[in-house]
Amino acid sequence: MAEKPKKPQKLRARLPRGLEDRGPAAIAATRQMVEKIREVFERYGFEPVETPAMEYTDALGKFLPDQDRPNEGVFSFQDDDEQWISLRYDLTAPLARYVAENFESLPKPYRSYRAGYVYRNEKPGPGRFRQFMQFDADTVGSASPAADAEMCMMAADTMEALGIPRGSYVVKVNNRKVLDEVVESIGFGGQEDNSRRLTVLRAIDKLDRLGLQGVRQLLGEGRKDESGDFTRGANIPEKRIDGIISFLELSGNIEKMTGSGKEKEGELISFIERYFEPASGGLSGVEELKSISAIVRAAGYGSDRVRIDTSVVRGLEYYTGPVYEVELLLDTKDEKGRSVRFGSVGGGGRYDGLVSRFRGEPVPATGFSIGVSRLQAALTMLGKLDTRPEFGPVVVTVFDRDRIADYQKMVAVVRNANIRAELYLGNPKNMGNQLKYADRRNSPCVIIQGSDEKARGEVQIKDLIEGAKAAAAIASNQEWRETRPAQFSCKEAEIVAKVRDVLARHDVRW
Amino acid sequence: MAEKPKKPQKLRARLPRGLEDRGPAAIAATRQMVEKIREVFERYGFEPVETPAMEYTDALGKFLPDQDRPNEGVFSFQDDDEQWISLRYDLTAPLARYVAENFESLPKPYRSYRAGYVYRNEKPGPGRFRQFMQFDADTVGSASPAADAEMCMMAADTMEALGIPRGSYVVKVNNRKVLDEVVESIGFGGQEDNSRRLTVLRAIDKLDRLGLQGVRQLLGEGRKDESGDFTRGANIPEKRIDGIISFLELSGNIEKMTGSGKEKEGELISFIERYFEPASGGLSGVEELKSISAIVRAAGYGSDRVRIDTSVVRGLEYYTGPVYEVELLLDTKDEKGRSVRFGSVGGGGRYDGLVSRFRGEPVPATGFSIGVSRLQAALTMLGKLDTRPEFGPVVVTVFDRDRIADYQKMVAVVRNANIRAELYLGNPKNMGNQLKYADRRNSPCVIIQGSDEKARGEVQIKDLIEGAKAAAAIASNQEWRETRPAQFSCKEAEIVAKVRDVLARHDVRW
Repeated sequence: MAEKPKKPQKLRARLPRGLEDRGPAAIAATRQMVEKIREVFERYGFEPVETPAMEYTDALGKFLPDQDRPNEGVFSFQDDDEQWISLRYDLTAPLARYVAENFESLPKPYRSYRAGYVYRNEKPGPGRFRQFMQFDADTVGSASPAADAEMCMMAADTMEALGIPRGSYVVKVNNRKVLDEVVESIGFGGQEDNSRRLTVLRAIDKLDRLGLQGVRQLLGEGRKDESGDFTRGANIPEKRIDGIISFLELSGNIEKMTGSGKEKEGELISFIERYFEPASGGLSGVEELKSISAIVRAAGYGSDRVRIDTSVVRGLEYYTGPVYEVELLLDTKDEKGRSVRFGSVGGGGRYDGLVSRFRGEPVPATGFSIGVSRLQAALTMLGKLDTRPEFGPVVVTVFDRDRIADYQKMVAVVRNANIRAELYLGNPKNMGNQLKYADRRNSPCVIIQGSDEKARGEVQIKDLIEGAKAAAAIASNQEWRETRPAQFSCKEAEIVAKVRDVLARHDVRW
Repeated sequence: MAEKPKKPQKLRARLPRGLEDRGPAAIAATRQMVEKIREVFERYGFEPVETPAMEYTDALGKFLPDQDRPNEGVFSFQDDDEQWISLRYDLTAPLARYVAENFESLPKPYRSYRAGYVYRNEKPGPGRFRQFMQFDADTVGSASPAADAEMCMMAADTMEALGIPRGSYVVKVNNRKVLDEVVESIGFGGQEDNSRRLTVLRAIDKLDRLGLQGVRQLLGEGRKDESGDFTRGANIPEKRIDGIISFLELSGNIEKMTGSGKEKEGELISFIERYFEPASGGLSGVEELKSISAIVRAAGYGSDRVRIDTSVVRGLEYYTGPVYEVELLLDTKDEKGRSVRFGSVGGGGRYDGLVSRFRGEPVPATGFSIGVSRLQAALTMLGKLDTRPEFGPVVVTVFDRDRIADYQKMVAVVRNANIRAELYLGNPKNMGNQLKYADRRNSPCVIIQGSDEKARGEVQIKDLIEGAKAAAAIASNQEWRETRPAQFSCKEAEIVAKVRDVLARHDVRW
């Protein structure tokens, strides 16, 4: 535990690096997104399941993309009984544990979805957080490429449900068996080369972020990033790097060379086939790509939505077959006017070994994960999320502090009519502060009752929306004060009706 | 980190103690509850804010109710820079940090709500988890008892919104200033007696769970629980324990003695007043109780909903004024037929010191927290949550495995009509398994197309709901097989229309 804090000394209020607080607009946007994703996933027949934020460390395995940190990228602590527990770093490893634990009682194939925060003990950076939200779907117990094809179509449907137009995103599909074969061809084949192969795959996975030059450096001698940190390279000889790069560029080059979508894909597949020796392990991967392509085309998804792309890798170690990635094709400018390419906002693949670790029998599985936090950042920049400020509550002001119970009663009356309302709870001595507060809260109107109004059984209602409009229209401050626009009195019994009038006049949802 | 696992050996799939997985019914129930609570909190003018799951340990403070474990009840780990980070154990301490950090930019009073998981490194037990959900509302920057009164009314409204009838819950209010005075009267007054005073408060807080006898033991020599664990007591002399107990029993006894609600409360307040010396600190607490009582009564909340109760304490150290607790007054039977009293499902209070720790100036605050997980367990037992199984997706079966793309196309057609549907993705060799799967998924109907149907451009639709009804009605298994009830064929182009007919016939929401 932390050392005892020194004597009464002001604590600093701050968050650890790589974490963030979220306000009403961000929360509303996430809710909106999660609802839309959920709708699509349910339409595909997936059902919800939820696992806790922590698991035994050994159950999670060590499949993280970024292992150049202590704790191997996860947050871990020891339980009372000395066993290590970690916060989940994705939603796939816990699902594998869940399925293995409940194997007999689940329908198979088991199709499930879940949204939740995941935690990575990584170096935080711009747009790179240590807590972020993912939304996953997985099909466990199906070896069919139809299950992978379905994930790709669902990814496409999800993007469109989120308001991203066709043509502004693409789901790219590749296959680890194909990639493994390519990497093997440079001599990283044996079991003992596992970690070197992984280094290569992870280098390729950064194509999106670092470009071809960056990947070349990571495959070769290494790369120094902007902050000056050096990442060691895979030390592959230059000529073999060329071989890998030419494979990655295959899809792009064929796209440039040939005509319509359908032809292109046939062309690409036969190019990949020719890349391998007959009887090579890579060819079964090519067969799977062919099946996926046939299924998605039959279901009406063109290559503008789902297509094979030789440059896709995915950074996680556990993939064993088809891998897919959703890329946003939109650029935007950041606050400083620099062009920002969003790139990958989700992806997944087949992980046939993950459940088997617990079962001792093969359990095929495939899954897809949306980076909700990342996608939300993109959609917000693109203006695709409705984050207009909502109107706040009606504020009942306190004119006479001895009559708080009366004012509270008015609040209750308005609330009982299902209209958001509150009593001003700050120091009531200054009416100006109360009105300023109502402004800050974006209130549509305030209710005021001084002793004169009380005597007449009336209240004053001040329409703040009308007031703001009028204030904007009237040049002279003086004039505005005198006319007191948009303020009227009504009987106490009419409060609800009059407040409703104000809300209706300005089209405020309540 | 964990030791390297021994050579390839089957991993055990299991969760650490005190954690749980949640399936579709529980997830749907939580969503339902959270939506209803949110609606009430928004009607009260609170706006959402969200903080991450972890904070610097020193920012959280050490205010946990259960400190008899290492790590002092929280999950903690050290960051790269050696600073300690902990998972939040409630939503109040992180809010205090958030408000302090953003003090200048927030409207004041700042009224906010949030739902989220919290984590306690406590001894798990039946219904006692190490991860559970809370839903909180807080008003920061108001010293007015009107803010506390509002929390109590909101708690009552929330219970009713969740379907708990009036009379089946009660919000009990007390005041720490009053309690402190009572505890001080037994000689635990000074700063140095802080921890002893806390022991006494925590003992009293267990009244609900342990009864008067258990509290007596904890105030005295200590208590051994069912598991044999011994909790040390506060070692207060018997006679003084009697004094405390008689104060706790005050409300209950007055209830027995006097008449209608209003009278009772006046009676109780004057009893409490008489308990103290003039000029005692407890009297300002009594004044606050009077204000709260007056405000809630004026707003129409009777003592059946909100009432003063001298036995309420709340276990957290940080409370400084009014404290409140929502109690369910319902009993139910557990699976073993034993009577279960639900007791407290939420509560809160005034914590004027929590934000001040960061600010070096007084910042009054009050808040209320619903134990969503706990309340959900209660509502589920009481049958108040609609957890009927929903119907699953339409399942398109695979008759001919070479025609997967065709079947997938049918799935796409049904999905595009916004009806949940999926392709059977398991091994298709056995149609019986496919139908069993559809049954397990609670599918309303399945679609089948063999080569004969294909030749005629038709499909078979099997209405599983009708089938189940018919099967229940028909005595003979033989007869059922022969009549093949609720199966019909239709043209491929009519699939959507016919599926809609089936769904409509059985009133399935889709």
